[in-house]
Amino acid sequence: MEEVEVSPPQPMEIRIKVVSTSLCRSDLSAWESHAIFPRIFGHEASGIVESVGQGVTEFKEGDHVLTVFIGECMSCRQCTSGKSNTCQILGLERRGLMHSDQKTRFSLKGKPVYHYCAVSSFSEYTVVHSGCAVKVSPLAPLEKICLLSCGVAAGLGAAWNVADVSKGSTVVIFGLGTVGLSVAQASKLRGASRIIGVDNNPQKCENAKAFGVTEVVDPNSYKEPIAQVIKRITDGGADFSFECVGDTDTITTALQSCCDGWGLTVTLGVPKVKPEMSAHYGLLLMGRTLKGSLFGGWKPKSDLPSLVEKYLNKEIQIDDYITHNLSFDDINKAFNLMKEGECLRCVIHMPR
Amino acid sequence: MEEVEVSPPQPMEIRIKVVSTSLCRSDLSAWESHAIFPRIFGHEASGIVESVGQGVTEFKEGDHVLTVFIGECMSCRQCTSGKSNTCQILGLERRGLMHSDQKTRFSLKGKPVYHYCAVSSFSEYTVVHSGCAVKVSPLAPLEKICLLSCGVAAGLGAAWNVADVSKGSTVVIFGLGTVGLSVAQASKLRGASRIIGVDNNPQKCENAKAFGVTEVVDPNSYKEPIAQVIKRITDGGADFSFECVGDTDTITTALQSCCDGWGLTVTLGVPKVKPEMSAHYGLLLMGRTLKGSLFGGWKPKSDLPSLVEKYLNKEIQIDDYITHNLSFDDINKAFNLMKEGECLRCVIHMPR
Repeated sequence: MEEVEVSPPQPMEIRIKVVSTSLCRSDLSAWESHAIFPRIFGHEASGIVESVGQGVTEFKEGDHVLTVFIGECMSCRQCTSGKSNTCQILGLERRGLMHSDQKTRFSLKGKPVYHYCAVSSFSEYTVVHSGCAVKVSPLAPLEKICLLSCGVAAGLGAAWNVADVSKGSTVVIFGLGTVGLSVAQASKLRGASRIIGVDNNPQKCENAKAFGVTEVVDPNSYKEPIAQVIKRITDGGADFSFECVGDTDTITTALQSCCDGWGLTVTLGVPKVKPEMSAHYGLLLMGRTLKGSLFGGWKPKSDLPSLVEKYLNKEIQIDDYITHNLSFDDINKAFNLMKEGECLRCVIHMPR
Repeated sequence: MEEVEVSPPQPMEIRIKVVSTSLCRSDLSAWESHAIFPRIFGHEASGIVESVGQGVTEFKEGDHVLTVFIGECMSCRQCTSGKSNTCQILGLERRGLMHSDQKTRFSLKGKPVYHYCAVSSFSEYTVVHSGCAVKVSPLAPLEKICLLSCGVAAGLGAAWNVADVSKGSTVVIFGLGTVGLSVAQASKLRGASRIIGVDNNPQKCENAKAFGVTEVVDPNSYKEPIAQVIKRITDGGADFSFECVGDTDTITTALQSCCDGWGLTVTLGVPKVKPEMSAHYGLLLMGRTLKGSLFGGWKPKSDLPSLVEKYLNKEIQIDDYITHNLSFDDINKAFNLMKEGECLRCVIHMPR
């Protein structure tokens, strides 16, 4: 824990008092990569606007917000297309700097401290571009809905927006963490008839059924390649497969696990090691499709408020993904629990 | 030229007097691979039914037909899905044998001669499964429509059925042979605003505009990687890209050449050498889709007759793809012309 200085918001930025923030695997992966240091992680968060920078009319002090790691400028080719959420102006920020001036808003003893994914919510206060926050209903419990800021929304959207999972279909999900289990919830809500979860963590397999998974497959229990197992038990392959592990070899396996003709593989995970995926062209020629999904295809400002409404109306569930509630002082516990595969989401609550 | 014996059709088969057959690149690739020998190539063909085997009610002597290298059984999971043309019963045949009994219908001095793609049209007579032929209007000129049996139909379908090219969109086509130029024709008919053709054969580039290509790019004229050129001239990448070369590295280039957010790459070519394609996962995460296309997604029996009608109604053109007309005796000329990249389609006319 360090006492960091947080500068006031610059033009078109807002400063947020973080209320709750959960740990996502990509925070852990980026931390383990040791690149860009010192840095404040955290990108799945809720908070209350503390002050607004010049030119900001969308937010005012006291507004409840979710942060988002890909913003929505509402004016670039991507935002105006109606077909994409990969904003060209406020897209994935990889250098630890603010979009506007390529500087940081954090400092420690006068030296810059870098951002993560344009959010940096593992801090009592943070500054984000106003395009990277979404105003939400003040009725929604901030300590729960922070999960919609990344993981749960990413999984729901991958199934609904990107794959468009259909009633009666067979779905295979690789990786039964929060993202994979959100794909399961979304697939169940669409009426998928079989939702097969694949994970080599027996505890994750055990918990999966509560989220809609109808059967689990642990690769450690089979001698044959797991794609072959899936093809066998689904009579030729699933209609949809989802890569939620963040491993390029699993993308290949997911592609092999779906069926000829119309099999669709959606890749959601951000690979930690090998960034190149490969596949035999024959898998494609026989009618498969491979599609990427970033934040489930949701346009944050346009779409997140309605997801929050769905939660308030009990049309989607979030609470059961929260396996641990920790105080900010205990944030390292969250990292350890995720490393050991012993949690879904650890929500970290900031001091009030 | 050899005098080969052609056996009568077995149950559910038909014997066809081949009228015209054109040379497709995959015949050349398969011939160069030297696998399975002796063998009769040819799969893009038209003909007249000479006799029908037991149980065949769909065809009778004298019917005009197109042959097809993927059949349509009308009853398997794929055929009945309404979503696929990759028939499980009469799909791509790779061993040179008949689907029904795993034997051949050709012999030379008592020894079996193998088939190619369940068609083998480089023969005056051939035997095919009745599921691998399509009855067409007797008004259609057989010496032209044989091109719909593979190449032209594959290109049209890739753009219409698989990519669903939209009005005003930007299309990039890698490889300006018959298949690529058919993608161009189809994209033009859909109202694409820019159709960029990529080929390192200057002659192919020159001819391309007649088929709807609006600008051509020869990779040899640039020092930078061709994907970078395409991204530059299209301000971030094309809406659609098509791999019509049959090269897995070109699949990667095609994926790189389409835009973030909604870029779609369709791969049509059958790679001749390296069967594994690879791509950086980031291309996918930023919203790209990679999709394979076999015979343009057409279900042969259900869809080919209407393509023939479109030709008769002058809604699509075929004639200009025929750069050479040869007699069967001159078939080796066709192989040489294709090897040298000096033709689009050479149609080989059988003795009457």
